[in-house]
Amino acid sequence: MSAPEQPAAWSPAPHRFPQAGLPTQVRVYEVGPRDGLQAETEVIPTAAKVEFIERLVAAGVGTVELTSFVSPRWIPQLADAEQLMAQVSLPDEVRAVVLVPNLRGLDRAIAAGATEVAVFVSATEEFAKRNLNTTIAGAVSAAVEVATAARAAGLPVRGYISMCFGDPWEGSVPVERVADLARELLDGGCTSLSLGDTIGVATPGHVRALLAAVQARGVDVDQVAMHFHDTYGQALANVYAALTAGVTEFDSAAGGLGRCPYAKGATGNLATEDLVWMLHGLGIETGIDLNSLADASAWMADRIGHASPSRVVTALLSSRRSASHQT
Amino acid sequence: MSAPEQPAAWSPAPHRFPQAGLPTQVRVYEVGPRDGLQAETEVIPTAAKVEFIERLVAAGVGTVELTSFVSPRWIPQLADAEQLMAQVSLPDEVRAVVLVPNLRGLDRAIAAGATEVAVFVSATEEFAKRNLNTTIAGAVSAAVEVATAARAAGLPVRGYISMCFGDPWEGSVPVERVADLARELLDGGCTSLSLGDTIGVATPGHVRALLAAVQARGVDVDQVAMHFHDTYGQALANVYAALTAGVTEFDSAAGGLGRCPYAKGATGNLATEDLVWMLHGLGIETGIDLNSLADASAWMADRIGHASPSRVVTALLSSRRSASHQT
Repeated sequence: MSAPEQPAAWSPAPHRFPQAGLPTQVRVYEVGPRDGLQAETEVIPTAAKVEFIERLVAAGVGTVELTSFVSPRWIPQLADAEQLMAQVSLPDEVRAVVLVPNLRGLDRAIAAGATEVAVFVSATEEFAKRNLNTTIAGAVSAAVEVATAARAAGLPVRGYISMCFGDPWEGSVPVERVADLARELLDGGCTSLSLGDTIGVATPGHVRALLAAVQARGVDVDQVAMHFHDTYGQALANVYAALTAGVTEFDSAAGGLGRCPYAKGATGNLATEDLVWMLHGLGIETGIDLNSLADASAWMADRIGHASPSRVVTALLSSRRSASHQT
Repeated sequence: MSAPEQPAAWSPAPHRFPQAGLPTQVRVYEVGPRDGLQAETEVIPTAAKVEFIERLVAAGVGTVELTSFVSPRWIPQLADAEQLMAQVSLPDEVRAVVLVPNLRGLDRAIAAGATEVAVFVSATEEFAKRNLNTTIAGAVSAAVEVATAARAAGLPVRGYISMCFGDPWEGSVPVERVADLARELLDGGCTSLSLGDTIGVATPGHVRALLAAVQARGVDVDQVAMHFHDTYGQALANVYAALTAGVTEFDSAAGGLGRCPYAKGATGNLATEDLVWMLHGLGIETGIDLNSLADASAWMADRIGHASPSRVVTALLSSRRSASHQT
């Protein structure tokens, strides 16, 4: 036992060990360009956002949330939604989604050529009041209004539910309440859902309990994506729990972009690279090339000026530096 | 949707959602004082190590690896093993273990009052050669020699197997080889085992495959602890997979002490706080108080001069700062 000798050059990659009973394919729903960059206070040039999205897609990302048609006064970072949509060039097979808060946003999104939209509600009254300036019922009614109009225009609609597990003001969130909201959103026109652990407190038993409650309301697991934050390091264990319950779509942000709005310096979105490492290790196809994805994340990390919190990005970049020093 | 409002004061804690079929109690085997501090190049004063261990135990840590009786020339950080053992004061119910590489180390450990020892081998020839300066067979023979003598002296013996999943030189490690080694160590006198993912590449299907192979050699799951590194963010998902296979002992380091020897800047040991968050969320008892444990880790992080990579420690400290600013 001595100081560890470094390998001269190696390319870390997950070893493939499929597990019976899990899905064989998973959709990785990339939220970095919208949910991730939204957390950055310094405004990023549209051209850099466009290049980031195109790098992600070149790395094999097949589903991506591009931007949000919110009021530019609310989120200056996303004030360039129209310009971004005009400049980004995507292959036809890529599923591209934009967030819209209201009918005005939907009109702008449709005019900009959106082919799928996302709406959002809160599972807690405090978060609805403090962050959406409404009530749970008010948020659902606005979301259903947008969903109805979007469906009439022929667009699929994804419904986000925030604070599905815990809330900093209200504590543990009843799974039945989330299940009721899920049912309401689907009945109101949403074609799929994303259940969010906005503060990252969930653990695997809670995930399975929530999914069981949602399914008990007649919601098919194929209509449900899970959106985990890694603030307490639980995101990937929760993904694994959701996989055992049949979930096949997971939200994540390249490089773990996004931070945590409720704990300065803490991690927010699950990093796509960490997710993909596990999925590939489980023999689950994603279509994503892990090294190219980490390159795209490192490229954006350079632009925003802080390192990626992704464990995989950190380790892959370190292995390459070590290899290039020794060869 | 506006800039998120911060909660004035809240104490994040996992919500309790037990899952049927999982163990209800788990032993957290704390490796921070030995495996963690060993990675620090600047030598930490014995008094600080002693205070760290006593803080961990006061936080409810019931099993702890204290130090290593290796040659001081190999690992200067642990050259104070005798002094540490003489100074540390532990309640009788705490299980305290020390690492020993050979009979000379065992003699020193016994003279210092050790009540349980740990030995170690490698599952790959390259790691055995480059880091232990021997072969797999040579390491097993040395470990069995120590184990036999320790058992004769009435001490239980823990057998570590390194590189059980992947190796930077050899790639994926056959589960049958690890299972054979597990059998050999138990037959050679070890009373329990710790299977290590030294480079952190494992994913949940691999964990379950390895545990199945080990059990197929007649090894009881109660004799097996899992030792995961979080280098690729997989550690906690792997713990969850091992829990579903019945494992009830997990190695971790307070605050994630330890780094990764094969990727500079990357994470090494799973952080005890991240592990405990999940276990408590699953309704699994550990006896540990999460906030006191994070305090102990933050205290040591101040002494070694770099922040904890634990997601839970980072988020808990941030929530407290935010609360104290607003009250």
